[in-house]
Parts: sequence; structure tokens; C-alpha cells
Amino acid sequence: MSKNKTIITAEPGKQELFITREFDAPRELVYQAHTEPEIFAQWLGPNDLSVEFEVFEPVSGGRWRFLNVGRDGEEYAFHGTFHEVSPTRIIQTFEFEGLPESGHVSLETLTLEDLGNGRTKLTTHAVYQSVADRDGMVEAGMESGVTEGYDKLDEMLATMQN
Amino acid sequence: MSKNKTIITAEPGKQELFITREFDAPRELVYQAHTEPEIFAQWLGPNDLSVEFEVFEPVSGGRWRFLNVGRDGEEYAFHGTFHEVSPTRIIQTFEFEGLPESGHVSLETLTLEDLGNGRTKLTTHAVYQSVADRDGMVEAGMESGVTEGYDKLDEMLATMQN
Repeated sequence: MSKNKTIITAEPGKQELFITREFDAPRELVYQAHTEPEIFAQWLGPNDLSVEFEVFEPVSGGRWRFLNVGRDGEEYAFHGTFHEVSPTRIIQTFEFEGLPESGHVSLETLTLEDLGNGRTKLTTHAVYQSVADRDGMVEAGMESGVTEGYDKLDEMLATMQN
Repeated sequence: MSKNKTIITAEPGKQELFITREFDAPRELVYQAHTEPEIFAQWLGPNDLSVEFEVFEPVSGGRWRFLNVGRDGEEYAFHGTFHEVSPTRIIQTFEFEGLPESGHVSLETLTLEDLGNGRTKLTTHAVYQSVADRDGMVEAGMESGVTEGYDKLDEMLATMQN
């Protein structure tokens, strides 16, 4: 088990949340794991779903779309745009295509902070169009998906450093 | 003077605001005025600044950047991405490049509603990374810029219908 904890903070009544996670790897490697699709696809999301990038343009002004695919072939699609991609910050839009109506979009700001000694702190700040949209994402199982993903990322980063 | 009023609603302590405005023109025309750069540049923003689009890709996944240029040559730059562009809705990111630090981005959802009788209601819902970011935009003179722009759009739409 990892000793680094994923912490999700969603204050009641607000249309935002924060996710923080530390990694035992330098910032450049954590950044690489978010911008190289072959690496990203190996750790992103819950354990029981694989990731297939359909579009992945990790540059400022680019766009992305990926599928989460389950064992029985069920698919969940997500897409968005990259407002900014830089070595310390990725700002993107995010939409889950499986909702009853489209157009429910969040704005995510991922920040990578060098903690020294080859360690990095990742913070994601997500803002939603409404409190209900945020609560819906949390209730849909965001925590387990994010936590499982980052635990896989721990293993990837260990491999990348060897 | 226009009889259609621009209404900006920014509830204290929230990280969002709403702008509503009705137009005496069909929805298709209001959409066209937001997606054809030659038309858009003629009405967008305050009266004393001209608009120069550097990039303008009004499709889902596209990006945009424009300059507001004053009489003395002063420039204010803005950029973002188009998450969605469809005939009834435009969802985009928005960043003013003149702030002391970059990365302060908002997510804007513009909706066009057909009111019948050749009239259209435009609603923009903007969400910010913080209440302070939202308040800063409002205090920077958003209201006069938006109101002046929509009054110019009234005139453009009248011309487009002749």
C-alpha cells in the first residue's frame, strides 16, 4: 500500500473541489506521466477500466478525448480542451459524455509543486457550473477512481525511475 | 437607446455570475454574430477599443485569441479554447492576459434561446476559480464593456436583417 494519501476536499455548498496527492518522484516525471499518452493510459482512472485515447493534444489550445472501457466492453467517454499545458500547470475543460444531457463541463487546474528531495505535490482544483454538478461527480465515485489511479501512478513512477 | 437591458447578476460570495440580454433578432443571426469573426470584431467589447482576432476557430475543440486595441495603441489580450460550439450553445475558457500572474481562467457557457417572433434571449454563465477572481472581473469594468458591446450588436443585427 502507498503511504501517500489522496485527499479530496469538497466544502458543502461550494461549486469547487480540491484534490491533493504527493508523489515520490521529481516534478518532470509526474508531468511526463500526464502528457505522454502511452504512460497516461496505463494509470488513469479506476482499476477495472482500461483507457483508450482517441484524441490527445497536450499543448495549450489542444484537445483530448478518451474512452474508459470495462471487461464486458462497456464504454464511458470523456472529452475536453487544454487551455494551458506547461511544466508546472495544466488547465483543461472536462466533460463526461454519459450524463442525461450534454454541456455539464468543469474547469480543472492541475498544479505540480517541487517539494525537493525528488518529491512532488500535485493539486487539482476543479470548478463546476453548479454545486449539484460537483456533488454529482463526487457521488459518482470520483474518490475511488482518483485514488486507484494515483496508486497505479506510484508504481509507474517507481518503474520510470529505475 | 436600446430598450433591451443587459442584466449582470453576481450574488455575493459566489464564484459565478450570469449575464442576460434579449435581442430583436432570430437566434441564427445572434449565433452568426458570435461565430463570424468579421461581424464579431465589429461589436465585441467597449466602444473605445477595437478588436483584432489573432486566432479564431469557432468549432468544438478550437481556440481563440484577440487583442483589444485603444486609440493610443494600448493593447489588452485575451485567449481561450472552445469546448463546445453549437447553434444554441457556446462553452469556452476565457483568460485576460493583463493580470499580474497568468492562469486565472473562467469557464463561460453562452446559451441562445429562441423567444419566438424573431427574438432571442442570450444568457452567459461564467464560473471562476475563486470569488476574488469573479469580483476582480466585475470591478474591472465588465458591465460597461458588455453593455456597450451588446448595444453595438443591436445595431449590427438590425443591419443584418435589412
